[in-house]
Amino acid sequence: MHDDFLEQLKKLQSTFMNMGINVSEQIYQASTTFMTHDKSKAKLIVSDDSQVNTEEVDLEKEALNLIALQQPVAAYFRQIICILKSSSDLERIGDHASSIAQETLRMKKKQKLPDVDAIISKMTLKIREMLESTLDAYLHENESAARLIAQDDLTIDKYFVECRNLIIAEIEKDTKKIPSAASYLLVVRLLERIGDHIVNLDEWVVYNHSGKLIELNPGKIEPDLIKKELKTEKNELDKSSENKETPSSNK
Amino acid sequence: MHDDFLEQLKKLQSTFMNMGINVSEQIYQASTTFMTHDKSKAKLIVSDDSQVNTEEVDLEKEALNLIALQQPVAAYFRQIICILKSSSDLERIGDHASSIAQETLRMKKKQKLPDVDAIISKMTLKIREMLESTLDAYLHENESAARLIAQDDLTIDKYFVECRNLIIAEIEKDTKKIPSAASYLLVVRLLERIGDHIVNLDEWVVYNHSGKLIELNPGKIEPDLIKKELKTEKNELDKSSENKETPSSNK
Repeated sequence: MHDDFLEQLKKLQSTFMNMGINVSEQIYQASTTFMTHDKSKAKLIVSDDSQVNTEEVDLEKEALNLIALQQPVAAYFRQIICILKSSSDLERIGDHASSIAQETLRMKKKQKLPDVDAIISKMTLKIREMLESTLDAYLHENESAARLIAQDDLTIDKYFVECRNLIIAEIEKDTKKIPSAASYLLVVRLLERIGDHIVNLDEWVVYNHSGKLIELNPGKIEPDLIKKELKTEKNELDKSSENKETPSSNK
Repeated sequence: MHDDFLEQLKKLQSTFMNMGINVSEQIYQASTTFMTHDKSKAKLIVSDDSQVNTEEVDLEKEALNLIALQQPVAAYFRQIICILKSSSDLERIGDHASSIAQETLRMKKKQKLPDVDAIISKMTLKIREMLESTLDAYLHENESAARLIAQDDLTIDKYFVECRNLIIAEIEKDTKKIPSAASYLLVVRLLERIGDHIVNLDEWVVYNHSGKLIELNPGKIEPDLIKKELKTEKNELDKSSENKETPSSNK
């Protein structure tokens, strides 16, 4: 009876990890096809999203069956709850990847904003790294790794603010690019939201390991954090420019 | 023992309903302060969000304790799982309301887009009606009501597409309003996402009642639905204009 339970639990964990890996690939593909403007690939991504939605439902059914029928104790209970809650975040990340692909289908090629694409590229790599590290932290029940990964969301939030300002500046210079700017803004917002969902996954890794329910999102713990960080960086950049312009006599 | 359990379950349901009502008020306030450009009220909404986040954590702790310690059967189990899953959606709705308030703080008054504000007003009323009907459907375990409410998300999605097109048209006419257009786009996207989260709540009302896990989001069941609906409406409008312009001889 217990062996049967452990086998079902292992199957559940394996299904969850596969869903995570699929979603990570989906984000990467969606973001890349947006940057390369590959419309046929974008269509495939949109149609694949229904598979992720089905995976979430199947995962939830398995998890709920396991709790209801087997009534697991302590650590096993936490593991199943972790999967039950995390599956929603994975499904939302999949949704966001599909929404990014839909923006690719709306865009016109001559309206690309290359400087924003460059930041999107950095955001995508960071997000992929965060998600795959989180899946690894989940596999090894590594709470401290999960806590660290969540801090990286600050970088994603900063990239979002940079992109937003850059998009506005670009279309003020070239108003013909206004329609594409809407797509760009929504895409970078989607990437920023994906970062938030990954932090939620990290919170469930912590719960899985120690039973603690905590807030790990740096932007929620201190809402003005991004503003402060960007202000500090700007001050440092301004100081550095001043030092280059006015020769110091006391060096 | 059983009476004690029923009392704790009742308390859990009451906490959940209160969180739902608070969040409904939060969306309404955030959206209204965006339209009226009330910055001091917007600051309060942003600071209140941490309370919603704390409510979610408390709700989750209570729900998890109840399952782990009492190991409830069938209908009671479903009720607690419904709350455990729904609490995330309520918390995300609260987050989105706070994000709307943050856009109010970024906006400049002279850059308002009154025609978009008019649609935002309709979206807000619809969303509030959907959320409060959903909470009522939850309270009365009314599965058919929940299924109907979810269909209303189509209206929210259509409003989003209308707003998006209108925002682009407005800033092509008056490029000085470009910075506010970014805020408007993000706000209407947030309202559209709130609609999606309410549909998730409706899906959990269905689960609560009958144990079925189903997809209710009209946009996910048929991704091209909004396009088709808007195209049909446009064709009907065009036909109606043609009929007015060319007098018919066979009436």
